[in-house]
Amino acid sequence: MLVRSQPDFAEILFAVNGSILPRIWRRLTVILIVAIIAVLAAQQHPGIFQRISAIPFTLIGIALSIFMSFRNDACYSRWWEGRKLWGELLIAARSFARKIADLPHEERRSMTYLLCGFTNGLAARLRRQDERATIARWVQDPIAEDDPNPTNYILHQLGRRSLALMDSGRIDAIRYSVLETELRALSVVQGGCERIATTPVPYAYSLLLHRTALVFCLTLPFALAGSLGWWALLPVLLVAYTFFGLDALGHQLEDPFRTEPNSLPVEALTRRAERDMLSLIEGEELPPEITPRNHVLM
Amino acid sequence: MLVRSQPDFAEILFAVNGSILPRIWRRLTVILIVAIIAVLAAQQHPGIFQRISAIPFTLIGIALSIFMSFRNDACYSRWWEGRKLWGELLIAARSFARKIADLPHEERRSMTYLLCGFTNGLAARLRRQDERATIARWVQDPIAEDDPNPTNYILHQLGRRSLALMDSGRIDAIRYSVLETELRALSVVQGGCERIATTPVPYAYSLLLHRTALVFCLTLPFALAGSLGWWALLPVLLVAYTFFGLDALGHQLEDPFRTEPNSLPVEALTRRAERDMLSLIEGEELPPEITPRNHVLM
Amino acid sequence: MLVRSQPDFAEILFAVNGSILPRIWRRLTVILIVAIIAVLAAQQHPGIFQRISAIPFTLIGIALSIFMSFRNDACYSRWWEGRKLWGELLIAARSFARKIADLPHEERRSMTYLLCGFTNGLAARLRRQDERATIARWVQDPIAEDDPNPTNYILHQLGRRSLALMDSGRIDAIRYSVLETELRALSVVQGGCERIATTPVPYAYSLLLHRTALVFCLTLPFALAGSLGWWALLPVLLVAYTFFGLDALGHQLEDPFRTEPNSLPVEALTRRAERDMLSLIEGEELPPEITPRNHVLM
Amino acid sequence: MLVRSQPDFAEILFAVNGSILPRIWRRLTVILIVAIIAVLAAQQHPGIFQRISAIPFTLIGIALSIFMSFRNDACYSRWWEGRKLWGELLIAARSFARKIADLPHEERRSMTYLLCGFTNGLAARLRRQDERATIARWVQDPIAEDDPNPTNYILHQLGRRSLALMDSGRIDAIRYSVLETELRALSVVQGGCERIATTPVPYAYSLLLHRTALVFCLTLPFALAGSLGWWALLPVLLVAYTFFGLDALGHQLEDPFRTEPNSLPVEALTRRAERDMLSLIEGEELPPEITPRNHVLM
Amino acid sequence: MLVRSQPDFAEILFAVNGSILPRIWRRLTVILIVAIIAVLAAQQHPGIFQRISAIPFTLIGIALSIFMSFRNDACYSRWWEGRKLWGELLIAARSFARKIADLPHEERRSMTYLLCGFTNGLAARLRRQDERATIARWVQDPIAEDDPNPTNYILHQLGRRSLALMDSGRIDAIRYSVLETELRALSVVQGGCERIATTPVPYAYSLLLHRTALVFCLTLPFALAGSLGWWALLPVLLVAYTFFGLDALGHQLEDPFRTEPNSLPVEALTRRAERDMLSLIEGEELPPEITPRNHVLM
Repeated sequence: MLVRSQPDFAEILFAVNGSILPRIWRRLTVILIVAIIAVLAAQQHPGIFQRISAIPFTLIGIALSIFMSFRNDACYSRWWEGRKLWGELLIAARSFARKIADLPHEERRSMTYLLCGFTNGLAARLRRQDERATIARWVQDPIAEDDPNPTNYILHQLGRRSLALMDSGRIDAIRYSVLETELRALSVVQGGCERIATTPVPYAYSLLLHRTALVFCLTLPFALAGSLGWWALLPVLLVAYTFFGLDALGHQLEDPFRTEPNSLPVEALTRRAERDMLSLIEGEELPPEITPRNHVLM
Repeated sequence: MLVRSQPDFAEILFAVNGSILPRIWRRLTVILIVAIIAVLAAQQHPGIFQRISAIPFTLIGIALSIFMSFRNDACYSRWWEGRKLWGELLIAARSFARKIADLPHEERRSMTYLLCGFTNGLAARLRRQDERATIARWVQDPIAEDDPNPTNYILHQLGRRSLALMDSGRIDAIRYSVLETELRALSVVQGGCERIATTPVPYAYSLLLHRTALVFCLTLPFALAGSLGWWALLPVLLVAYTFFGLDALGHQLEDPFRTEPNSLPVEALTRRAERDMLSLIEGEELPPEITPRNHVLM
Repeated sequence: MLVRSQPDFAEILFAVNGSILPRIWRRLTVILIVAIIAVLAAQQHPGIFQRISAIPFTLIGIALSIFMSFRNDACYSRWWEGRKLWGELLIAARSFARKIADLPHEERRSMTYLLCGFTNGLAARLRRQDERATIARWVQDPIAEDDPNPTNYILHQLGRRSLALMDSGRIDAIRYSVLETELRALSVVQGGCERIATTPVPYAYSLLLHRTALVFCLTLPFALAGSLGWWALLPVLLVAYTFFGLDALGHQLEDPFRTEPNSLPVEALTRRAERDMLSLIEGEELPPEITPRNHVLM
Repeated sequence: MLVRSQPDFAEILFAVNGSILPRIWRRLTVILIVAIIAVLAAQQHPGIFQRISAIPFTLIGIALSIFMSFRNDACYSRWWEGRKLWGELLIAARSFARKIADLPHEERRSMTYLLCGFTNGLAARLRRQDERATIARWVQDPIAEDDPNPTNYILHQLGRRSLALMDSGRIDAIRYSVLETELRALSVVQGGCERIATTPVPYAYSLLLHRTALVFCLTLPFALAGSLGWWALLPVLLVAYTFFGLDALGHQLEDPFRTEPNSLPVEALTRRAERDMLSLIEGEELPPEITPRNHVLM
Repeated sequence: MLVRSQPDFAEILFAVNGSILPRIWRRLTVILIVAIIAVLAAQQHPGIFQRISAIPFTLIGIALSIFMSFRNDACYSRWWEGRKLWGELLIAARSFARKIADLPHEERRSMTYLLCGFTNGLAARLRRQDERATIARWVQDPIAEDDPNPTNYILHQLGRRSLALMDSGRIDAIRYSVLETELRALSVVQGGCERIATTPVPYAYSLLLHRTALVFCLTLPFALAGSLGWWALLPVLLVAYTFFGLDALGHQLEDPFRTEPNSLPVEALTRRAERDMLSLIEGEELPPEITPRNHVLM
């Protein structure tokens, strides 16, 4: 996640870091070249180009904006839902810690470690990193080699621990159900995050919009070259920048758990959850907070 | 569900697989022929066509985009809600498995098989396949011939088993209510999926948009032929591709449980749920994960 | 609800059944006559009409599309929420049946009949039919003449039965609370359906849009007649068809519990709930499923 | 709330009652006068006005429509959320009545009266009427002079009564928690209604839109007068009617608990809740239903 | 939060207080200067400027409006969600107070003080004020120096107190779970508010829109100067005012917990919660309500 203050006048015009420009400059260059060709051709054969009117392009451009706005909305919603789910994770982790506050110190510590294992495991799973190794830093218990879902296995362990506490009479059935509420909340978080990470916006949809946007930007110069001459470069580039930029940004927000500049700061959120939970266990040393590096919070 | 990485420049322009083109090329051909006729007619009788202005078409086209965007939004929401419901199913299945973790092995196994029967039955029900036969692979218990809802019957069986566990004193009433929470969640998933599968977007709505889009695309060439000549083909085809494409895609997303390329991967999700549940029962062999075939995950 | 497959090319252009045309042909005829008058007048006095430009009409038309799209969205949401509520009803009915699965046969039967009475009563209440008589088909218990809400009274009876089961010790307090969950869900369904049925979209809103759309369509011919001549009829009719059609459809979806072609199939859903519930009671004969008649499912 | 059937052709054009016209005719008159001045000026000095093109106004008008549509959406959502909350109130009241159905008659009556006091108190609080006096009609118990929230105090009393029932052993802890669910639901209703009533849409937002709409409508005549002459009055008035109308309507829906024609029928809903609750207490006389007066339901 | 009544005609045109103007006048001045230069240049070299058509700018302007409307929508949703969360806080605080109504006076008072400490601590945390000092005004208990989350620590204390009440037998497990419901609700409020305060709308998104809007407004004068002359200043300024205004307003709503004029009245809401809670403890003096100062409620 990019952490920057509101940009000032100069930054708005010239900032590159944090901008989507590095992702789309190649396409913009292609469009620029096509536009230059169009203007040169229009100067050679003005007759052909004079016939092309800008009005149908207005129609297509507006239609495209409307549909692109819809895809953008869908991608942003996924990004924001991802953030909400990690917020839920923090809430459930804090609440679980609160609900076991009267258990013996050792019990609380090992359950908190399981929670930390779950949180880190989920982060690794979503970022396609080594889930098993990440969990092993917190939980000694070995996980079966062929377990398809180690993070869920940790949650299962937490469930077993709660059941064991009840079966041994140390907590009653109501307390067990109160703890299970938080485990279910964590299950909801995992399920929701997996859903977002494994189900992209329908491919045909993205392709249709990519394609229409590209064809539109490739042909727009020919529509404007006749009447605007070299002035045509400006609106062509501005339109291409906006359409390609929103498109590329939508792609970044679509799966918000990756390590792109605009992805969610999964690592920092994991650490925050750890710190919140460990600070409630006496004698635990807190790992340092994660801070943005080069304006990017991972 | 199509599983493809972000397309590159060439793919955007020329990809056919994963595109909506195969569904709409017939309509596009009709529009192309009409457009050619319009241009030829305009060259013969330029006087008649010069009068037709593009401005009213801009108005109609933008209005159509706005309404089509609304239908698209509704269809995408149904698709995403369908995915959410299957995510809920995974969550409830995992949570149920976690909540019975201290029951005897045999009990857990047979309840897990019932859960697998429910999941597979629901998938078959939604895809209009043989619900009864699918369930029979997991549950020996015969289901009455005239039972209108075998999948719900399996859920009913799970409810009975939970009641029997309570009535026999093996779990107390609180535990029963904790288990029932998951059964209710499964009931919500079934009800939600049935709702989406049996209630299309109002037919009159789809028809109105189909009709306006078709008439619009059939008459647009006549509006542009006079002023653009052969250049008219390009915007006409681009507009038709976008409108028909979004329309066809909306239709595919409307009932997301079918076996279209952009449908939800119900089979793969079912298998994932099975694997997650069976991995928690000792001694069970896991069925293999389902992988995309020709970029399509079923 | 209209039950039709995806329309083909010819149906899109010429289908009348399932179309919104029957509701709006009178208005379309008025617009057609006005358009013909406009064209004739423009041929007589071309000077006056040449001054009228189409550009302000583009602005008004697009603004109108945006606002109409908003109203349409609101109406569709009401329709879909109504469907969701009836889905909830099915879920709650199935869950209630599951939760009483270990009660004696007679008890289950009479409670199931009460549930059927509630479902049928709600359907009658929403469709402004004879609520009291409908309920009497399932529940012998007479309802007070001045009871303002017989359907809620049936729910109240179910609550009393659950309380009586607890007070007599046949179920414990937890079971009672588990049953109450479903009764509350049914109360939510009733409250939600009543809300949609009794609270239309603000009248001033509908009136404003009706009025602007009508004035717009009545004056559009005069704006186009000057420049397009007889060709003006086509865009005028297409615009009027789209605007009036969406308007009429919105009105049909606004209160989705009536008996319009695009209303929800309340009767079929009621029957489905009945069948699902009765199939779980041994020895009950299932009423036949309701099937679409002339493509309309009631 | 205006209660009218679907308007017919003549009503659409000429209805004044139920229309937003009475609120905006003053502004429309100003615009009309400005438009007449613009046309007269254009006839005197045609040279100056010919330069003003309608195209930038199309851009501004469409942009304004998009932003106004957003504000309208927000206001309608508030209105509909308000209605949902009052629906929740009915649901919670009915459910509370159902859950105390086996208590002694006297107990039920006095708790029902407290519920009626809460409902009426909330209505008075939201409409800025005399909350304390309204409650006193149902609850004899005096409320402290400096109590900042008498309606919440009544809910507090209901909570105390429930606690007392549990502390005296007449209901057990589970029953108490089942009753508390409804009290919490009522608390949610009160909190939600207070939120809507005390937090308008950000003032700067409304001001920005008011201002842009007003400046737009004041300058539009000058843009159209040159090319349209007296015909300019029609689009100017239609645009002004739509923009000002939606603006005024949005303002009415923003705080839906006032006594404007399009406000929610808080009084009728309160009465409906009373009737539903009192009909379940034997020997209570039902107050009459509230009916629309002059098509307005209060 | 700005607390003003509906503005009248003169206020709409000339109000400065409460307007977004003070934030954007610098940018507007730059645009004005550029516009004057454009007009002067157009008068010197009319040939160059005549070629620039306004049509591509219409396309860009409308596309920009659509995307800006999306960002605005997202920012408003965050603001409204923030308000909802503080509403939830009031609801949970009132409900907690109701649920402990039968505990001894001293117990209730100290728990209420903890709740006040939580509320004030959260407000300070969100406004980046001294969280620890704010809490210390209500809670004597010292908080560890390195505690990363003092507000959550107070909630943890409340959880411990509830557990202690149960462990000592003064309330039973059900009552404990009923109290925990409210503590979880408070946890949800804290997590939600932290999410909004720490996760801005993706920076690249804001930058893209800022940039396109700025370039658009800087070049628009050149497109209009040729045809409109000095009249171009009016639409240019109106467009710039609307775009920059919405942009600046979106930025204010994005993090609604700051102390901008359009921020949420966190201080007043905190005080309202305090008053509601303290009024239920006998013998507590109520702090005065917070009233708007210069039309701004903090």
